[in-house]
Amino acid sequence: MNEDGSGIIILDQSLLPGEEKYIELKTPEEFYEAIRTLQVRGAPAIGIFAAFAMAVIAGREAEPKSIRSCCGASLTSDETFMNTMKKFGDYLKSSRPTAVNLAWAVDRIIHAVRIRIQQARREDPLRPDANAGARVLAETVLKEAEAIRNEDIEMCLSISRHGLSLLSDGDGILTHCNAGPLATSRYGTALGPIILGTEQGMKFHVFADETRPLLQGARLTTYELMKAGADVTLICDNMASIVMSRGLVNACFVGCDRIAANGDTANKIGTSGVAILAGHYGIPFYVLGPTSTVDLSCPDGSRIPIEERNPEEIVSKYYDRPVAPEGVKCFNPAFDVTPAGLITAIITEKGILKPPYTDSLRDALK
Amino acid sequence: MNEDGSGIIILDQSLLPGEEKYIELKTPEEFYEAIRTLQVRGAPAIGIFAAFAMAVIAGREAEPKSIRSCCGASLTSDETFMNTMKKFGDYLKSSRPTAVNLAWAVDRIIHAVRIRIQQARREDPLRPDANAGARVLAETVLKEAEAIRNEDIEMCLSISRHGLSLLSDGDGILTHCNAGPLATSRYGTALGPIILGTEQGMKFHVFADETRPLLQGARLTTYELMKAGADVTLICDNMASIVMSRGLVNACFVGCDRIAANGDTANKIGTSGVAILAGHYGIPFYVLGPTSTVDLSCPDGSRIPIEERNPEEIVSKYYDRPVAPEGVKCFNPAFDVTPAGLITAIITEKGILKPPYTDSLRDALK
Repeated sequence: MNEDGSGIIILDQSLLPGEEKYIELKTPEEFYEAIRTLQVRGAPAIGIFAAFAMAVIAGREAEPKSIRSCCGASLTSDETFMNTMKKFGDYLKSSRPTAVNLAWAVDRIIHAVRIRIQQARREDPLRPDANAGARVLAETVLKEAEAIRNEDIEMCLSISRHGLSLLSDGDGILTHCNAGPLATSRYGTALGPIILGTEQGMKFHVFADETRPLLQGARLTTYELMKAGADVTLICDNMASIVMSRGLVNACFVGCDRIAANGDTANKIGTSGVAILAGHYGIPFYVLGPTSTVDLSCPDGSRIPIEERNPEEIVSKYYDRPVAPEGVKCFNPAFDVTPAGLITAIITEKGILKPPYTDSLRDALK
Repeated sequence: MNEDGSGIIILDQSLLPGEEKYIELKTPEEFYEAIRTLQVRGAPAIGIFAAFAMAVIAGREAEPKSIRSCCGASLTSDETFMNTMKKFGDYLKSSRPTAVNLAWAVDRIIHAVRIRIQQARREDPLRPDANAGARVLAETVLKEAEAIRNEDIEMCLSISRHGLSLLSDGDGILTHCNAGPLATSRYGTALGPIILGTEQGMKFHVFADETRPLLQGARLTTYELMKAGADVTLICDNMASIVMSRGLVNACFVGCDRIAANGDTANKIGTSGVAILAGHYGIPFYVLGPTSTVDLSCPDGSRIPIEERNPEEIVSKYYDRPVAPEGVKCFNPAFDVTPAGLITAIITEKGILKPPYTDSLRDALK
């Protein structure tokens, strides 16, 4: 958030690694577009961003009305405040339907507001229409957003420690897409163990899939790992097989966007292919993510909506001219689902979960 | 070849699909660079191109010397001619070490020249230094080059017919890289059955892997299939898994750069990954190529040299600016080896070969 709480300052990830540009976002449309166009990306980072975006909108709801109230006009009712939060939250949620953390963060903010409103009514039981007031509710939203961020920092550290316990000095690790500090608040999830281990003097050899079409691996993972001082080699997605076949990979670490109750996991397009290759070569395949990514209401991967994106991302984005004939038909799913059976373990802040995931996920979320 | 035999005119494949530019090549260095920089590419096409390049050099060897001979200078000896052919052939071979057709075509030309020299000596048994003469030998080279091309046309048609026998109307087919008419002389190998079937009114749904880093699938396969009137959908390499998981693929068709005696097959980087995915999803995986791609002197895939190419191809080629941090380490193998065990059948001009390939390949080459 910026100093006066009127906006959010983010590092525009869509410009990395060529340009390190910080941008200030203030309007609902800017928040929505930042998520949709991947200026902010990575499941946990989107959740944190959405929470602070709600804090900005909440603060704005508190300000002008408080001036009006001085002039004798009626206060913004808690109901109006709640409606504004819900409407904006639904709008934000629609920017990326697959990311469960986005919905999770929005719902958590709404829940905190609801609790605070109920508390106000309990404190003044004689007035059934007692209001907490927009300023108090806006503070509640901001506190909840800060809690979400601080918990994320703790979670990432915990995930990183659990993940690191699976690695040995000198290991080769293959990762897909980006689940590092940029995608979270610190350390990251899939990259967390590597960065934490590197800080402790361990040496890993990381292979980063470039992750077409948006090249998060090439642009962000290499950038983060080089900054952290880790040994990283960039490969095209289709080179994962040869690297594994040569015995250079001891483990695969990937993030996740949504984990169904049975352990099926949605993550960046291509993740399921990496899991199948790892299974073929007998390499353990680990999913790393906070338990907030688990969606127990979703029984299995077939129920996870898969976002399809613009063909332009495949054909012309980044390129100096289109790389396929004009009018070519494209299929551009942003995610795929890795079946639980291909996942060696799911590493969460609550520990390393093993199959059967229906049990271990339910227990972890208790 | 151009009209006076002094050069070769090719469609510069490195510029497709944005630009359809024909270029004329004349010098040994231009021939070498055309192969190295993929202006001409695809195993059979490289072989045909190399054969005609040798015909150009052979013609040049015949011309100036015949002028000299009119002036009373000595004729180019057959030995000198042969040395020139061998030297140029070795030079051409070094442009792409993995492509067995390149070496095969060069060796076949050399062999034809040797036979013609021996014939001249037999025809004049009293003179052990009898020469066929550069002009005769140059004609031999040209005829052999034409034979290689004509046989390739026949081979592709035969491969296409055998491949088509495995398909049904409405089938979904996934292909990787490009093994179409541009890579051969007509129809192509992996794309041949699709193009032939489409000509006959069948409808296929083809998924073309874009094939990073040089995007032969995006640039060439879509171009050729759209021209042929087939239904083609471009995907990123890492989307093959989701497409297969949705039941949209009935068969995988890929070309080959070298087949070892046991059936292990070198082809464009990423092919082994496609084969592993196909195996996982229970989809037949077919390799299509002429028997000239089979190298019985190579016992298995571990003996096939894998060319490593410039990291620039991953990081900056095609892009309007580099997509990874400056100085990033890259691994850029151009090929990988698909183990014979993952190949359902090898489709050659001599028929559909089944495992065990050690037997079926040996029989086919008899």
